[in-house]
Amino acid sequence: MNSHFQAVDLQKAYRLLNHGPTVLVSASHEGVDNVMAAAWACALDFDPPKVTVVLDKTARTRQLVEGSGWFVIQVPTAAQAQLTHQVGTRSLFDQPDKLANIGVQLARVEGHAAPLVEGCSAWLMCRVIDEPHNQTTYDLFIGEVVAAWADDRVFRDGHWAYEHADPQWRSLHYVAGGHFYAIGEPVVVDPQS
Amino acid sequence: MNSHFQAVDLQKAYRLLNHGPTVLVSASHEGVDNVMAAAWACALDFDPPKVTVVLDKTARTRQLVEGSGWFVIQVPTAAQAQLTHQVGTRSLFDQPDKLANIGVQLARVEGHAAPLVEGCSAWLMCRVIDEPHNQTTYDLFIGEVVAAWADDRVFRDGHWAYEHADPQWRSLHYVAGGHFYAIGEPVVVDPQS
Repeated sequence: MNSHFQAVDLQKAYRLLNHGPTVLVSASHEGVDNVMAAAWACALDFDPPKVTVVLDKTARTRQLVEGSGWFVIQVPTAAQAQLTHQVGTRSLFDQPDKLANIGVQLARVEGHAAPLVEGCSAWLMCRVIDEPHNQTTYDLFIGEVVAAWADDRVFRDGHWAYEHADPQWRSLHYVAGGHFYAIGEPVVVDPQS
Repeated sequence: MNSHFQAVDLQKAYRLLNHGPTVLVSASHEGVDNVMAAAWACALDFDPPKVTVVLDKTARTRQLVEGSGWFVIQVPTAAQAQLTHQVGTRSLFDQPDKLANIGVQLARVEGHAAPLVEGCSAWLMCRVIDEPHNQTTYDLFIGEVVAAWADDRVFRDGHWAYEHADPQWRSLHYVAGGHFYAIGEPVVVDPQS
């Protein structure tokens, strides 16, 4: 990672997902890395920060999450729309070279085994909180966020700065069939009202 | 509701939340109606459609959801930013006239007891799937969507049409402290790539 890769205070980590972006989920187990896209990821708690993510039983990434007990939720940018769609529609089961074919670059942070996708705007390192009933019945995984980082060109001082960054940094919000919306302009109300 | 209030095919209901908007949660029990805001709501399944939503133990609306077994998730618009912040920061415990003071207008759909907030862009009528462990441990509620509606000025043919509607219809994506982002412009990739 580069000099813009900055740690985020865990008490502010929920803000990385609060606006509902489509995310990338990455994991690694027994030497196998994979990355998938997920529109169904959400903050669950502030402190300690927790997240939920839905991982389909057909997803190879889910096996890596279950095998390792760890996953990374990261926020892809508008510049990564094609990559986001491709990792979400291609399976490592069919394409052993999926990540290389798509051009996904992975990075590691010392002390953490799960891989981070380069070029994203934010990353949450999550430890699986084992909830077999949720995982089996709903494909719903709960993770505790043990570390978080963001690119300070678009997230700094605990806030997104989309309106001050290049539009290529905007988060993606998936609809269907290759259609996303980028996050838009600020709407500010009187917090005392 | 008006002539723009149209039923949404349940197989497409997930699309109403897929882009991660901040929502309003409404419920009614024993003659008490309430509405709260929630940034932590997410689609959980396609068919039958299910959703998750985090309802804090301090929220009066949570008691109404637990008492009645029903809630409505609705997508507020940029025009409702102040209302969304106010229903999310004021409690019915302190303000018995909360909804009237804020100017929240409720409507009912025949056959459903839970109230809908007028002026929103979409509504999902949800029956609580009782999961006591999730509710107690994580404040996490799961609902099955039994009916869905949208305003055809901004959602039609199973797709959001934000780019073709007045900007006041855009969904809200909460950050913190009265700061939201509105949903932005479309980003379309080749679905075959």
